[in-house]
Amino acid sequence: MIIDCHGHYTTAPKPLRDYRQRQIDSLKDSSLTPKAPPVISDDQIRESLEVAQLKSMRDRGVDLTIFSPIAGQMGHHIGDHAMSENWSAICNELIHRACTLYPDKFVGVCQLPQSPRVPPANCIPELERCVKEYGFIGCNLNPDPSGGYWTDPPLTDKWWYPIYEKMVELDVPAMVHVSGSCNPNFHHTGAHYINGDTTAFMQFLTSDLFKDFPTLKFIIPHGGGAVPYHWGRYQGLAQDMKRPPLKELLLNNVFFDTCVYHRPGIELMLKVIPADNILFAQEIYGAVKGVNPETGFNYDDTKRYIDSIEWLEAGDREKIFHKNVHRVYGRYGARAAGRRK
Amino acid sequence: MIIDCHGHYTTAPKPLRDYRQRQIDSLKDSSLTPKAPPVISDDQIRESLEVAQLKSMRDRGVDLTIFSPIAGQMGHHIGDHAMSENWSAICNELIHRACTLYPDKFVGVCQLPQSPRVPPANCIPELERCVKEYGFIGCNLNPDPSGGYWTDPPLTDKWWYPIYEKMVELDVPAMVHVSGSCNPNFHHTGAHYINGDTTAFMQFLTSDLFKDFPTLKFIIPHGGGAVPYHWGRYQGLAQDMKRPPLKELLLNNVFFDTCVYHRPGIELMLKVIPADNILFAQEIYGAVKGVNPETGFNYDDTKRYIDSIEWLEAGDREKIFHKNVHRVYGRYGARAAGRRK
Repeated sequence: MIIDCHGHYTTAPKPLRDYRQRQIDSLKDSSLTPKAPPVISDDQIRESLEVAQLKSMRDRGVDLTIFSPIAGQMGHHIGDHAMSENWSAICNELIHRACTLYPDKFVGVCQLPQSPRVPPANCIPELERCVKEYGFIGCNLNPDPSGGYWTDPPLTDKWWYPIYEKMVELDVPAMVHVSGSCNPNFHHTGAHYINGDTTAFMQFLTSDLFKDFPTLKFIIPHGGGAVPYHWGRYQGLAQDMKRPPLKELLLNNVFFDTCVYHRPGIELMLKVIPADNILFAQEIYGAVKGVNPETGFNYDDTKRYIDSIEWLEAGDREKIFHKNVHRVYGRYGARAAGRRK
Repeated sequence: MIIDCHGHYTTAPKPLRDYRQRQIDSLKDSSLTPKAPPVISDDQIRESLEVAQLKSMRDRGVDLTIFSPIAGQMGHHIGDHAMSENWSAICNELIHRACTLYPDKFVGVCQLPQSPRVPPANCIPELERCVKEYGFIGCNLNPDPSGGYWTDPPLTDKWWYPIYEKMVELDVPAMVHVSGSCNPNFHHTGAHYINGDTTAFMQFLTSDLFKDFPTLKFIIPHGGGAVPYHWGRYQGLAQDMKRPPLKELLLNNVFFDTCVYHRPGIELMLKVIPADNILFAQEIYGAVKGVNPETGFNYDDTKRYIDSIEWLEAGDREKIFHKNVHRVYGRYGARAAGRRK
């Protein structure tokens, strides 16, 4: 069983994007406010997935993808919280429909209706709805709803506690995932994503968040940003600050995905991060689309890198490819074990 | 010959810090404005270096350190450009004195008097003074003078071109180095530093800056932020954007230091980054101070990691430990070759 914990519906049918464009245009001309949700047929959903995510999953031997709306299009910085709520509900419903059409291939994770300077408690109803009505097993939490100016409090601030209380109650983890960048300094997938990951980890390292929430779980995507590469730096910084060792401090709560697009990076991660804390992922479809001319395979075909690490023990491989998912995504684990949740 | 390209005067004598504190306090009460530069004796300078940087250099077999003011204390976001100019001049003079006291041990790199939203052209006189009067061989350039809000234009914007023209004329490179963070989201050495590195690289990747300045050179410190770990991602992003291969696009102009504080990180860097683009460094004294209990040696003793990579060829080792410095820091190279500059 191979589970990819990080897939986005980047190929969502055009009516979704048209809807969003009208919504954005309505900020300048309110007469353009969309009157009704986008109309998308089941066939359009199937077509958009068959040629992309599902094809890639078949080609690469991935059985299940934990699937969420397009991260770069969450656009929490656009409009106000009401617009964010409307847009999130529409995106999440589409994920639900994809999961319903392919119940063996996709399981849902929701976008949250965050908005800069709006207390994250406003996200609770949508999270609860997606988990209880749609059967979603997690959420994507944006540590910077401002889209590159970082004007909201750190993830470890009590500002965020209401959403953490609900996550714990529902037993769902969050993937820490920024959205697009409106700051010209930050290319979104090349800088803002990776910076968001690194930033969140260091926030966790310097706080006692996991004393307050011992069962709260976060996945830091894109291989944990810069963290595994600088693991010695983080060990040393924690030590200089008289913090507990990293394992004790945060490895019951923080997990990393394998979206690292070359073999040496994956090998480093497997060397320094315990297998219990690594979840297989590729971020398909389309974070990096190309074929590496040096290997002849897609950069984002991360399973191939892991498969090629001959020293990785079979038990660790199983943890990374599927077993950890049962533990990190508690509702998935319960469901798979027959204890419906 | 072992040259460390990245050292800061973090142990500068107390009068320097007192001066800065009075300067900061004067923002609230102008009567506190310091009337004269801090008084620091040669003995105070010697004492502050002998027990720290010089001891570490002797212990680890480092012959020469390229030395600059405390990066975290550049504080470009504090006060206005006049305060930044005053503070920079004082810090740079102290570096010059350290280099004069130990001409075989230190060679200077200057802090620039940047200030948010002030055109970087204001840095030209101080750069020129440090290079021509003090014999400095480079500068530290802060890509985010706002200290964590990233409100100035990207490094590839024409905003920065006047300082680049002067750098090229003087044949000095810049180390891209942020200062302290006043944004509570970013721990300075754990997030802001690493994010600054990653961000700068991606700015270079997406621009034609090096077509405009074919001989302009940047060192990206802290092992290049997240870049070597995500080298496949950057190759793939460049390819998706139809940019030239990374080697052709920026490896004549962008170099990485070895401030990565564990062996697996250093090994990854040596695997993916050409030896021509790697410069030995530790960032002493004190970015990470502790001893790694797993190895019994300081986290920041990066020479030890490089020495332990048995597959690294002797020629590449020489490039990393000293030869590349001659090429990247053109004035140092000319001086060492007897062509005084």
